[in-house]
Amino acid sequence: MNYRIILYIVGWVLNIEAAFMLLPILTGALYGEPDLWAFVVTGALCLAIGGALTFRKPKRQYFYVKEGYVTVSLCWVALSVMGALPFLISGSIPHPIDALFETVSGFTTTGASILPAVEGLPKCILFWRSFTHWIGGMGVLVFLLSLLKLAGGSHMNLMKAESPGPSVTKLLPKVHSTAKILYGIYIAITLLQIVVLLVSGMPLFDAVTTSLGTAGTGGFGIKNDSIASYSPLIQVEVTIFMILFGVNFNAYFLLLLRKWKQAFSNEEVRWYFIIIFAAILLIGWDIRGLYGNLGAAFRHSAFQVGSIITTTGFATTDFNLWPQLSRTVLVLLMFIGACAGSTGGGIKVSRFIILLKSSRKELSQYLHPRQVKKIHMDGKSIDREIIRNVNVFLVVYVLIFAFSMLVLACDGTDLVTNFTAIAATINNIGPGLELVGPSANFGLFSCPAKLVLIFDMLAGRLEIFPLLLLFVRDTWRKF
Amino acid sequence: MNYRIILYIVGWVLNIEAAFMLLPILTGALYGEPDLWAFVVTGALCLAIGGALTFRKPKRQYFYVKEGYVTVSLCWVALSVMGALPFLISGSIPHPIDALFETVSGFTTTGASILPAVEGLPKCILFWRSFTHWIGGMGVLVFLLSLLKLAGGSHMNLMKAESPGPSVTKLLPKVHSTAKILYGIYIAITLLQIVVLLVSGMPLFDAVTTSLGTAGTGGFGIKNDSIASYSPLIQVEVTIFMILFGVNFNAYFLLLLRKWKQAFSNEEVRWYFIIIFAAILLIGWDIRGLYGNLGAAFRHSAFQVGSIITTTGFATTDFNLWPQLSRTVLVLLMFIGACAGSTGGGIKVSRFIILLKSSRKELSQYLHPRQVKKIHMDGKSIDREIIRNVNVFLVVYVLIFAFSMLVLACDGTDLVTNFTAIAATINNIGPGLELVGPSANFGLFSCPAKLVLIFDMLAGRLEIFPLLLLFVRDTWRKF
Repeated sequence: MNYRIILYIVGWVLNIEAAFMLLPILTGALYGEPDLWAFVVTGALCLAIGGALTFRKPKRQYFYVKEGYVTVSLCWVALSVMGALPFLISGSIPHPIDALFETVSGFTTTGASILPAVEGLPKCILFWRSFTHWIGGMGVLVFLLSLLKLAGGSHMNLMKAESPGPSVTKLLPKVHSTAKILYGIYIAITLLQIVVLLVSGMPLFDAVTTSLGTAGTGGFGIKNDSIASYSPLIQVEVTIFMILFGVNFNAYFLLLLRKWKQAFSNEEVRWYFIIIFAAILLIGWDIRGLYGNLGAAFRHSAFQVGSIITTTGFATTDFNLWPQLSRTVLVLLMFIGACAGSTGGGIKVSRFIILLKSSRKELSQYLHPRQVKKIHMDGKSIDREIIRNVNVFLVVYVLIFAFSMLVLACDGTDLVTNFTAIAATINNIGPGLELVGPSANFGLFSCPAKLVLIFDMLAGRLEIFPLLLLFVRDTWRKF
Repeated sequence: MNYRIILYIVGWVLNIEAAFMLLPILTGALYGEPDLWAFVVTGALCLAIGGALTFRKPKRQYFYVKEGYVTVSLCWVALSVMGALPFLISGSIPHPIDALFETVSGFTTTGASILPAVEGLPKCILFWRSFTHWIGGMGVLVFLLSLLKLAGGSHMNLMKAESPGPSVTKLLPKVHSTAKILYGIYIAITLLQIVVLLVSGMPLFDAVTTSLGTAGTGGFGIKNDSIASYSPLIQVEVTIFMILFGVNFNAYFLLLLRKWKQAFSNEEVRWYFIIIFAAILLIGWDIRGLYGNLGAAFRHSAFQVGSIITTTGFATTDFNLWPQLSRTVLVLLMFIGACAGSTGGGIKVSRFIILLKSSRKELSQYLHPRQVKKIHMDGKSIDREIIRNVNVFLVVYVLIFAFSMLVLACDGTDLVTNFTAIAATINNIGPGLELVGPSANFGLFSCPAKLVLIFDMLAGRLEIFPLLLLFVRDTWRKF
């Protein structure tokens, strides 16, 4: 294990985090809030540790898959621990576990909050909450890769570990350039949303934080009722942008290259839109009696469907009060999640496509035992390794889910609360049902339960394996 | 597709069902009940259809995996449809869908009932309900195989399709003899239980029906409160027999051969007992305050744990009223299920072992990418085909579950009711939680929901693939 390079990269992540602190400091200065000092102190601390770790560039820069996974996990832990300090120092969240929960929830783009009300918080704190979504959405290591040059295949191993989905497509031959393009697209759409919201009459601060939360598919709002108090026009706009950020970014890259046909023929994106469309129709019809007219019913349906499938977690209404069919559809959407290669969480549409196709293949194997059949996606045959990997992903996912259910049950909360709380964290969504519904929060859980949910959020964002490797003894053995 | 041989075997299954009718007829005669005519009519009908189908033995007796699966599915459908007639004819269950639900629930050893009360029913009807458990437990085709001689490998393809678990061990070189031995052990332990219960003071009729229900891991009781009103001694005895019938029957065969070491070193059986032990301790401790003393708490804990993990479904208390931790443990046990090669349902302990081991292997593959590792169980390496099959099983299982959730949600029943109703049927258990808890029944569901649950019960008993094949167009195509 190449410890030097791991620490070096963790150091760089902290340096970057220090730089990120400048934005909340600026926000605090603009609104004349004394709380900005919490960010100054945190930034200085990040820089001190980061500076020490990156003082000398290690000679052996090469590392393997294992080191890539461990590095990514450790970076995310470091990022979260330091990111929690502003909440603690400013006194906005007095308890360390709560502060960590809120920060991990931010970086993993979950958006589950332990705060009963957010409207009283200083603006710089609110900005930091939304900004963590944006940082975590595309990934801090992808950001680092767009700046830093490492030797050999190291880049790819880091990118693999942090990017969501069963496989990673390099858009350009160099990972360095791929990362730059991804962030370019990310920043461009975020800015576009800010402008659109501003034009629709949203105040600047609201437009910026809402856009950051949408881009990262996060879900922290700056109002107690999330997006409910904004105009229908703004709600529709946010709906559209949420859904756009759940699309595989490769599709946008292809659009940039004017490869229209390739962009629109992507199987995952097609299914993503089919599922969204079907869910909106089903729920809109189910809640048609609740909102006076069909238009409002379908607006709320579209917003909540977009919010849940992209794992954003904004809300315009308390869907916990919806009829059972709609609640069930939303719970199922929680697991499907967005496209691979987007900022969204969940199991991902492409994993489901692979699972479905391999099941169909298995079934036809009974009919034609001697047939050798390959599974195809977008015209290319899928590697057996990836299929096995997706299968095992599902198994470990289910096991972590079961373990979390046991721990949360010790709190005595009901089954639906526990089930949806875990679904909402491991899929990086935010709100669940019942006691963790859109109008409630995660403050009710005990510390052990919160720690498990923190683990679930990180496991969900890093897609389980990198995080699990930290707990395997073999990882730390020299050989 | 060799239609002639398929129909021939379905015919034989109906002949056997006609023979099985003799026992409820005898019961009716003993207790002087006029309802026995329902069985006489059904038996005659079975014999008429079965006789016509088996009149001439087909020349081409050979068939392949596909035909084996289709045959098993069709046999179970025929068995269930004819088995529902006595309920309809006698008027005990007036609605056809309800009668079919009850019968499928019986044959699949589920034990979920649509009847609000059973104590008023005629004894011959009660006997038939319990007897369907016993027939379905070991499987009607395995029974047929012990009588009938078919050419070539046909036997094995039938056995594979009906026996629970990821793979089938032939105890003896000939399937014919294996089936005989399995039924021998099955009958012996059932008789042993009847004697033990009689000695403990249970009336004869109660002892016989309870034993039939225990042996098949069914769960239909003859009292409204299931086993609650019997003495603690009887409850403990039923607990032990339930757990014994959840053990892989291969272990008993090895005991018969005096291969003690092999019998006790079986990995699946060991884990089965470890899980049971852990669950009893956890729940016993959790409900320690509910029953006055520790002894009673652990007795109830052991009974319910044994009943749920073996997917029997008897109850001595309303576990729907237990604290959340105990309820959660029971829900998790619902999915684990009993050992492969037992009469129990669920996903099976051995499947979980395989899933766990392949996940661990996958994880270590990240650490040592070039390592070639095989998964072992009981000292033997597991075929890759089986691992893939288990993975796909889990996927299709989850998909069927999700689809069922959607259909049941249309009824407007709450999430916990729906979730546990599906878990209780697809795993062939019986009672769930909330509206389908031990003190409630499945009568509340609409017809579409009941049909889906009927499908789930059959899918659970036949382990999904045979039943799914019926719905694939390719199955019925000639080539």
